[in-house]
Amino acid sequence: MTIREQATEAAAAARKLAAVSPVIKNKALEAMADALLAEQEEILAANTRDMEAGKAKGLKESLLDRLLLTPARLADMAEGLRQVAALKDPVGEIIGGSTLPNGLTITKIRVPLGVIGIIYEARPNVTADAIGLCMKSGNAVILKGGSEAIHSNTKIADVLRKAAEQSGIPAGSIQFITSTDHAAVQELITLNGLVDVVIPRGSGRLIQAVVGNASVPVIETGVGVCHTFVDAGADYAQAEPILVNAKTQRPAACNAMETLLVHKDAVQDFLPHMLEVFKENGVQIIGDETVCAMDKEALPATEEDWATEYGDLRLSVKVVSGLDEALDHIARYGTKHSEAILTRNYANARKFQQMVDAACVYVNTTTRYSDGFQFGFGAEIGISSQKLHARGPMALPELTTYKYLISGDGQVRP
Amino acid sequence: MTIREQATEAAAAARKLAAVSPVIKNKALEAMADALLAEQEEILAANTRDMEAGKAKGLKESLLDRLLLTPARLADMAEGLRQVAALKDPVGEIIGGSTLPNGLTITKIRVPLGVIGIIYEARPNVTADAIGLCMKSGNAVILKGGSEAIHSNTKIADVLRKAAEQSGIPAGSIQFITSTDHAAVQELITLNGLVDVVIPRGSGRLIQAVVGNASVPVIETGVGVCHTFVDAGADYAQAEPILVNAKTQRPAACNAMETLLVHKDAVQDFLPHMLEVFKENGVQIIGDETVCAMDKEALPATEEDWATEYGDLRLSVKVVSGLDEALDHIARYGTKHSEAILTRNYANARKFQQMVDAACVYVNTTTRYSDGFQFGFGAEIGISSQKLHARGPMALPELTTYKYLISGDGQVRP
Repeated sequence: MTIREQATEAAAAARKLAAVSPVIKNKALEAMADALLAEQEEILAANTRDMEAGKAKGLKESLLDRLLLTPARLADMAEGLRQVAALKDPVGEIIGGSTLPNGLTITKIRVPLGVIGIIYEARPNVTADAIGLCMKSGNAVILKGGSEAIHSNTKIADVLRKAAEQSGIPAGSIQFITSTDHAAVQELITLNGLVDVVIPRGSGRLIQAVVGNASVPVIETGVGVCHTFVDAGADYAQAEPILVNAKTQRPAACNAMETLLVHKDAVQDFLPHMLEVFKENGVQIIGDETVCAMDKEALPATEEDWATEYGDLRLSVKVVSGLDEALDHIARYGTKHSEAILTRNYANARKFQQMVDAACVYVNTTTRYSDGFQFGFGAEIGISSQKLHARGPMALPELTTYKYLISGDGQVRP
Repeated sequence: MTIREQATEAAAAARKLAAVSPVIKNKALEAMADALLAEQEEILAANTRDMEAGKAKGLKESLLDRLLLTPARLADMAEGLRQVAALKDPVGEIIGGSTLPNGLTITKIRVPLGVIGIIYEARPNVTADAIGLCMKSGNAVILKGGSEAIHSNTKIADVLRKAAEQSGIPAGSIQFITSTDHAAVQELITLNGLVDVVIPRGSGRLIQAVVGNASVPVIETGVGVCHTFVDAGADYAQAEPILVNAKTQRPAACNAMETLLVHKDAVQDFLPHMLEVFKENGVQIIGDETVCAMDKEALPATEEDWATEYGDLRLSVKVVSGLDEALDHIARYGTKHSEAILTRNYANARKFQQMVDAACVYVNTTTRYSDGFQFGFGAEIGISSQKLHARGPMALPELTTYKYLISGDGQVRP
């Protein structure tokens, strides 16, 4: 099948899927979880093929680890599907409405987006994850995974599609693109009228390629140059574990801290010890002049450093004259993802939350909380770094739109 | 100034504008209304230059009428700004939130989008309208109008910008692109990181050019191939004024009916008289075989006709075997804008509203109600025909996004 044919099938299925009851959708999610475990051996065999190809190709150890499936990881994927089944169904929720003076009633009701394209890289667990969230929210899905995981993804999608269709999900609702050709992506992201939205998940390079070339609407995810500003007189003892958590708990995550901004009046009492703590935690400091003078192992920060998402244990550190300079720095170099202030000053906390233009603005805690599960959403399809449609962690409601139902008895427009 | 420089100014202004109080914004809107009237003569003089150029260029009468400004039209524009001032301010509304088990509080608060680009065609009133709605919602705006109205638009934008800035709106919040070069549009719609969203308003050709070439997020507006399905046993007396209203009240509007679908069992009792009524109202019928056999003046409909937004007094008419065929026809040829069923059958009304995938789905009334003012929103920036972010009539809340404010006291992610 061509990609256009797959999308046409998906669009037709989406019409039916929008009306499938929560009972059937949840039964399908449970059946999909069962099938992942029942067909474990075949999935692991497919994964072995990908792993061997990856090793032959000389993939980095970290990439190979992301690619690897194990019985435990498959069990986690199955458990994830069951958790999604247990969440509240977003479809059909009445989210507004009114009765007009002329007697027309307007009801604003949540409905699926329709057909969602997901373009992602090496992790095969995204296949199950994305299919689960799209089915729960009543959306047909077209998946385009990375070539490294092609055998694993193809098998997982196949297993899940069969289980879903046997449970009453309309045929065609789950489409997997088997071509590893880049042209497939280009076709998918320009199928206006068939594909309602595309969500790229993966490297900045992948995301930018999709954003730059798509004509269907895109939800941009992921890039995070996140700052934490330590105010003068902050609770420095409290700041220490927060900053260690923000930088080191998972440095590759988009919500990890990349730049620490320190108020000049906090330098003397706070910074020398904090730099020691970072050193103990394996963090490489890239500092401004003040910081480099204080820490002989620090590297001097360039203009480019302030704008870089390291994604590892490097940390930019800058001393600022006060809150305003911190705000200016964040406005200039931030990516509007997650920003934090550590302070005891009520006015500064309030001003920071008002003035910082970012999806998540924190006071006295770590930017690492920007996550659908941590926020209590029960799921996450990605973290939007754009402002249109959805911002920050996205879960089931963010995979829906709405329509207006207008009911009358003969009204005409005057 | 280059367009990038204008956008950079707008982005800087947007940071400040987001924190401007409703009192100042409303004062500015009133001052802008006053200024439109105070500088009426200069605006009308600029409009005369556009009208003369338009006549010399041989613009169609209908286009010239859209271009024309009069004291009455200026008074309407001023009144529009005052009405926007009187609306509820969307910025700062708390739209959700929770307290997590670990004590973190999450507050979801409505904030401006940031910088909005508006690309539009001949009507100069859009200039005032768009500036008013963007200021009220706390967004900086970059306007790119059509070349036909360049003198009128430049003058209006100038008058409004001065009045706004004198009232406390941050300098740079209102940007008007004076270049009539098409490259200006291309630059505007690819300024990712500076422009948060672009909204094209105008012809299908303009909208498709923007959708196809933009890398910043776009809200697609406008194209409407709207259907009305007359069910068997509908209240035919009630149907008549509804259908006349839907087709003839303003045929060029995107929410006007383009196709009438008639249940085969309604043909005998309903259709002959209805075709007469259409004829009396100057409607040209483009029909299927049954319709053409019944009405000798009807033209035979081609495949293309079913997908065409006529925008005039032509109407496609098709007899269908029942609700399911009507639903299939709408799914195939509709543009997901506004669709209606006229029926007395409860189950059919319910099924139609559930199964039709469109922004506005009507029972027993006219599709012409798809409009921000008719819906009681008090404003309208356009009618979205996409599903992402906003769907159907868009007013002030649709010009906002949200952010999450997370407040803690030392929590770290486990």
